[in-house]
Amino acid sequence: MPVEKTPASRSRRSFLQLSAAAAAATTVGFRIVTEPMLAHAASAPYPYPKDAVLINANENPLGPCGVACDAVNGVASQGGRYSDWMTGDLIKVFASAEGIKPEYVRAFAGSSGPLHYSVLAFTSPAKSYVTAEPGYEAGAHAAKISGARVVKVPLTSTYAHDVKAMLAAAPDAGVFYICTPNNPTGTLTSHSDIEFLLANKPKDSILLVDEAYIHFADATSALDLVKADKDLIVLRTFSKIYGMAGLRCGFAIGRPDLLEKMGAFSGWSAMPITAVAAAAASLKDPRLVPDRKHINTTVREATFEWLAKNNYSFVPSQSNCFMLDAKRPAKEVIAAMAAQNVFIGRQWPVWPTHVRITVGTQPEMERFQEAFQRVMTRTAVSPLRPLRPRSESATIHLDGLVIPATRA
Amino acid sequence: MPVEKTPASRSRRSFLQLSAAAAAATTVGFRIVTEPMLAHAASAPYPYPKDAVLINANENPLGPCGVACDAVNGVASQGGRYSDWMTGDLIKVFASAEGIKPEYVRAFAGSSGPLHYSVLAFTSPAKSYVTAEPGYEAGAHAAKISGARVVKVPLTSTYAHDVKAMLAAAPDAGVFYICTPNNPTGTLTSHSDIEFLLANKPKDSILLVDEAYIHFADATSALDLVKADKDLIVLRTFSKIYGMAGLRCGFAIGRPDLLEKMGAFSGWSAMPITAVAAAAASLKDPRLVPDRKHINTTVREATFEWLAKNNYSFVPSQSNCFMLDAKRPAKEVIAAMAAQNVFIGRQWPVWPTHVRITVGTQPEMERFQEAFQRVMTRTAVSPLRPLRPRSESATIHLDGLVIPATRA
Repeated sequence: MPVEKTPASRSRRSFLQLSAAAAAATTVGFRIVTEPMLAHAASAPYPYPKDAVLINANENPLGPCGVACDAVNGVASQGGRYSDWMTGDLIKVFASAEGIKPEYVRAFAGSSGPLHYSVLAFTSPAKSYVTAEPGYEAGAHAAKISGARVVKVPLTSTYAHDVKAMLAAAPDAGVFYICTPNNPTGTLTSHSDIEFLLANKPKDSILLVDEAYIHFADATSALDLVKADKDLIVLRTFSKIYGMAGLRCGFAIGRPDLLEKMGAFSGWSAMPITAVAAAAASLKDPRLVPDRKHINTTVREATFEWLAKNNYSFVPSQSNCFMLDAKRPAKEVIAAMAAQNVFIGRQWPVWPTHVRITVGTQPEMERFQEAFQRVMTRTAVSPLRPLRPRSESATIHLDGLVIPATRA
Repeated sequence: MPVEKTPASRSRRSFLQLSAAAAAATTVGFRIVTEPMLAHAASAPYPYPKDAVLINANENPLGPCGVACDAVNGVASQGGRYSDWMTGDLIKVFASAEGIKPEYVRAFAGSSGPLHYSVLAFTSPAKSYVTAEPGYEAGAHAAKISGARVVKVPLTSTYAHDVKAMLAAAPDAGVFYICTPNNPTGTLTSHSDIEFLLANKPKDSILLVDEAYIHFADATSALDLVKADKDLIVLRTFSKIYGMAGLRCGFAIGRPDLLEKMGAFSGWSAMPITAVAAAAASLKDPRLVPDRKHINTTVREATFEWLAKNNYSFVPSQSNCFMLDAKRPAKEVIAAMAAQNVFIGRQWPVWPTHVRITVGTQPEMERFQEAFQRVMTRTAVSPLRPLRPRSESATIHLDGLVIPATRA
């Protein structure tokens, strides 16, 4: 098995240290600190305690690869220039590798932006937003802003998007959002189902195919349908297998007329050159994707084996996350795990006893197993309430998104 | 005079080298290469020739300061995490320094985004966009997307925004865009004029006060009016005096209800942690702003002295750019300067013989002077046509913006 050094083991101290624990008690723009965190604030790094296991945001514990870090370091001093040409070059390299025309590709500081803008551009009070249940929530948030009806269609029995039910539920559809592998289940929707949806959708609607997690899976990309000039936008990101969630680079890939309509909402801001440099370096490494896919698969399957052996229920996933059924209220489990310094992912209200688990490193997953066993056998003390009660929180953190709680 | 080492003297080679000159000839998403650039492509770095003087995009030749570069390097390996708390901490530090509540501040990857989203949020076919002529063009581009009437009001005789004329011209105003110091003229609009505009504007309109360049000038910020809960959003950026144009960090500062309305358009994407780290480090350096302001003022005034001595006309500026009247078609001058490897700023159609000059380093401004003298005395050979004719260009580069030429 290839070995990569993980930065997750290093201290992740807050870049700006709090001057005093008291400061942590004040309401801030992006985070409210609750008592359990305050207890740590005086003695430990904020916001996560030392040696916390972070398997809550579908981040990659390996971080950016070595050549990507080198590229960031090499480019920092050029940070005074907008350097648009670097973005143009990155797009050319990606487009060439995928056999797509460069004008079909646009770069963004992550894929959250083009997801949001696509929904704003192609939904309206008359054109609904159709997504899976459970599915990644960001698009539904954007649809609320555009005033669109949000249509949530349960996954099939094999946890694929139910494309026939999606079509039936929304003859007024503006956007069909297909995340494959799906967040949070890590399950695939077949290429033929995507083709079926394209062939049968309402005329002016588009498919928004989110391939953020595709590198982890044995799956067929929908990029061939973009090449065939179909009505879809494919999203890719460097946040997942490339480990660049904090650096911010992603692509929207689609017919130029679709990208232009979406791009009207985004503006045309310059890209962070650190992200562009790291992405370009990562694309040049032919071993990065296969090696990391292998690592993720190995750790995930070992975790599944342990879960099965201990009679825990989970949804088999092909991605870097999976849904685990605790058969207890998810919020209680999340809080109990956090009290043991293992931060697991959020719940989806439709599956109230499931929690989403991100695949960390093997040592992290062993700590997860120990903590989970203690929580499930009730040998761990469970806090009386969740770490950050909804009512006290100014924002809700999804994966790469920080949404005001008042709007979510 | 404080001395800073400038990265501008280092080779700015393209991060991704073109594999062959032929590749440069193809249409790409973000750039079309014309013959003069092609001539360089085979032997020299793309897109700018070696040792080019770049005083065309209001970038800071000093780049990020040393501690900012160190911060980028230090944080690169943590790039696998979204790290929202770093953004929260940065906002707290800025808010505290400005005596503003953190919930009045939102961070973005540069200020181009919030400029675009503010115009989308507060203009419409019924609510016009009001700006100065000449003024920074990005907002007018956004207004076209929202279907708003664009009202361009000439600057006063002292090159301030003519607030009375702006009010008179747009009783239907949605947004009054005030860039002070103004881009491209570097001239100020007084705090009392901004107060007058706020007191007399239509009820549902806002002021969008762009303070991207304010650190270069002896000017009063409008942040006190934000603190007083007035109807305005102030934009700040780390792209200018902080030298972080390529790293991407900026703030929108305004009443939470205004930020929320604008924020609906932006989405809530995570920030690039390299930018957040660099911005935080820069804010901690108390000498950065005064020292760089002094450097810029010194070089700018020396340039003005030379221009005056040689009987060239210019608009006196308090910023890092100024308008120079070549008394010849601006495009011709821009092309002739480029042929001498000095890349100067664009023209504004309303002032067809002026070119915008960014203040570079003193050695760069000396090369500018030599080249400009040769161009104006016709001892330099002027190419028959501009370097990148509009008709051949897929995009138009502003400062930090890349706009599709079809839409500009």
